[in-house]
Amino acid sequence: MTMAKSVNLTTVEGLTAALAAGNRRALARIISHIENNTHLARPLLAQLYPRSGQAHIIGITGAPGTGKSTLVNVLARVFRQRGLTVGIIAIDPTSPFSGGALLGDRVRMRDLAGDSGVFIRSMATRGSLGGLAQATADVIMVLDAAGFDRVIIETVGVGQSEVEIASTAYTTIVVEAPGLGDEVQAIKAGILEIADIFAVNKADRDGVDRTVMALKMMLNLGSPERFQVMHHGRMLAIDLPEVNALPTGWELPIIKTVATQGSGAEELADAIEAHRQFLAESGGRALRDRLRAATELRMILRDTLLEAQLAHLEPSFLEAVVDSVAQRQVDPYTAVQQLIHGA
Amino acid sequence: MTMAKSVNLTTVEGLTAALAAGNRRALARIISHIENNTHLARPLLAQLYPRSGQAHIIGITGAPGTGKSTLVNVLARVFRQRGLTVGIIAIDPTSPFSGGALLGDRVRMRDLAGDSGVFIRSMATRGSLGGLAQATADVIMVLDAAGFDRVIIETVGVGQSEVEIASTAYTTIVVEAPGLGDEVQAIKAGILEIADIFAVNKADRDGVDRTVMALKMMLNLGSPERFQVMHHGRMLAIDLPEVNALPTGWELPIIKTVATQGSGAEELADAIEAHRQFLAESGGRALRDRLRAATELRMILRDTLLEAQLAHLEPSFLEAVVDSVAQRQVDPYTAVQQLIHGA
Repeated sequence: MTMAKSVNLTTVEGLTAALAAGNRRALARIISHIENNTHLARPLLAQLYPRSGQAHIIGITGAPGTGKSTLVNVLARVFRQRGLTVGIIAIDPTSPFSGGALLGDRVRMRDLAGDSGVFIRSMATRGSLGGLAQATADVIMVLDAAGFDRVIIETVGVGQSEVEIASTAYTTIVVEAPGLGDEVQAIKAGILEIADIFAVNKADRDGVDRTVMALKMMLNLGSPERFQVMHHGRMLAIDLPEVNALPTGWELPIIKTVATQGSGAEELADAIEAHRQFLAESGGRALRDRLRAATELRMILRDTLLEAQLAHLEPSFLEAVVDSVAQRQVDPYTAVQQLIHGA
Repeated sequence: MTMAKSVNLTTVEGLTAALAAGNRRALARIISHIENNTHLARPLLAQLYPRSGQAHIIGITGAPGTGKSTLVNVLARVFRQRGLTVGIIAIDPTSPFSGGALLGDRVRMRDLAGDSGVFIRSMATRGSLGGLAQATADVIMVLDAAGFDRVIIETVGVGQSEVEIASTAYTTIVVEAPGLGDEVQAIKAGILEIADIFAVNKADRDGVDRTVMALKMMLNLGSPERFQVMHHGRMLAIDLPEVNALPTGWELPIIKTVATQGSGAEELADAIEAHRQFLAESGGRALRDRLRAATELRMILRDTLLEAQLAHLEPSFLEAVVDSVAQRQVDPYTAVQQLIHGA
C-alpha cells in the first residue's frame, strides 16, 4: 500500500506534477496564475508548452441569440458520451458559462459542471488592448497540456477580437439561427470567411430553410479555395508564404440543430471529427499549427517590445510627448518617432 | 468676378487645401489614403493633426437589436437642426451605415446622406490585429480637422475592440432596449463602466420601466466616482498617474427614446451638450485628450516597434523559430526572447 503523495500547489514543479495527475485544483490555480500574470506564469507556460499539441481546438462563434451556449453544452455531452474529455472556455458575455443568460441555461450548465471530464472556464471580455487574445491562447494551451481531448472556445461573432480568437481554432463553427431580423447575420459581419462548419441552430423555427438557402448561396459565390485562405493569411500571420496555402477540398457542411432538444448534436460532432481527420490527412493541421504559432509570436513580440521601450523611457519625457500630442502640437506618428529616436 | 481655382486632389497640399475649403471629394480621398495606408497617409495625418481638436466626439454602443443606428440617425438630424455639422463613422456590422440592416433603415439613412452637412463613413470590422482602433482614430481626426462639429462613432457593444473604440470618445452613450432576453444586456458585457449617458431605446415597448430600474440599481451599486475612472485608467493609457483621476460630479442620465419616432432625441442631444459642458468646466476634456493621446501613442508605438523588429530579422531565422513553436519544442514566450536577442 502506497501513501498518497502530498501535493504542493505553490511551486511550478508541484503544480505541473499535480496537473499531470489530473488534479483539478492545480488546473484552476495555473489558469489563475496566467490570468493574473504572476511570477509563476511564464515558468508554468514554458513547462507546459511541450506537453500541449494533442487537443483538438474548436472555435464556436455567432451573434447573440443564436443559442451557441446551449449548443456548446449539448456538444460537450456528445463528446463525453464518446469517452472524450472536454475543456470549455467562454468569452461570450451573453453565455451562461460567462455569467450571462437566464436561469434555465445556468441549470443546464451546472449539470455539465458536475462531470470531472468537463472543465469550464469563463474569461473576461475586458482587459488591456490585445490582452484577451493572448490570455485565451495561453489558457487553451494549459487545457491542452492538461490532457483534455477537445477544447471548445465560445465567442461572440460580432466583435473583431472575438471573431479572431474563434478563428485561431483548428475547426471553427459559425452558428446561425433563423428569425434574428436578417437571413444570415454572419454575412454582415464577414464571419462566413472563417467557418469550417455551419450550424443552423433553432432549426425548428420558421425560416430555417431560408437561412440554409442563404448560406448555400453565399458559399457558391465564394472561390473554390474558400475565403478562409485569404482571411487567415492576411490577418493573422507573420509573413510566411506557405501559410497562405491552406489545403483545399473541404466541403463546408451546413448542419441543422435544435440545441435545446439536443437534436443535430451528433451530426455536428461527426462533422467536427471529419474536419479533424481532413486536417490531419491534408497537412492542414501542421499549417494551422504554424499559423497559430506565428500569430502568438506576433502578439507576444509586439507587447514585449512595447513594454521594453516604455520601461526605457524617462517618465517626464514620455509625459511631455503625450502632452504635445494631446495639445495637437505634434501628430502621434511623428511623436512615436520621437519616442523611439529621442526628441 | 474670380475664377474658380483649380483643385489638385493628388498632392498633400492640394488635398488639405481642398479639405479646408469644404471639398467632400477631398475628404473621401484623404480617408481612402489612410485606410489603404498609401504613401500620402502619414504626411496627410501630420498636416491635418494640428487642425483637429475642435469636434466633440461621441461614441454610441450597445448590443445588436437595440436600435442604435436609428438613434444615430435621429440624433444627427437634431444636431443639424441646431446648425451643427455631423460626421458619422459606423463600425457596427449590423448598422445600415455599414451595409447591414433592413431596407427601411437604408431609406432613413439615405435621407441623411443627401445633406452636405452630414458625412457618413463605414469602416470594416476586420483587418490586422489592432488595426481597426488605429484606423478609426485616424479617421475621427480627419473628420475633426475637416471641421465637423460633432463626430459620432457607432460600434457594437459586444466585442472588446468595439467597446474600447467607443470608450475613447469624449461622451460615450450606451444604448439599451427592453425585451432583448435580459433586463440589461450591458451589465453582462461590462459596458456599463464606460457610459457617460444611457439611452433606453424602444421605450414604447413593454418592460421599459424594468430596464430603467435595472440600470438605476446598477448605478447605485457603483462607487460615487464611477467605474469609468478605473476603466479608462487601467485599460487604455500609457502609465500616467493623473489620467486616472477623471473629474467626478457627473450624474449619469438615463434617457428614454423611441428612435423610430424621433422621440427623446432632443433630450439625448441636450444630455450630450451638458456632458460636453461638464467636461470643459471640470477639466475632464483636457484629461480625456491626454488619455486619447496616450492610447494612440501606445498603439502606434507597439505596431511600429513590431514592424521594425520583423523587418530586421532574417526570414529563414523567423521561419525556424515559428517552426520550433509550432512543433512545441519552444514555448512562444521563450521564442520571443530568441527573436529579440538572437537564438
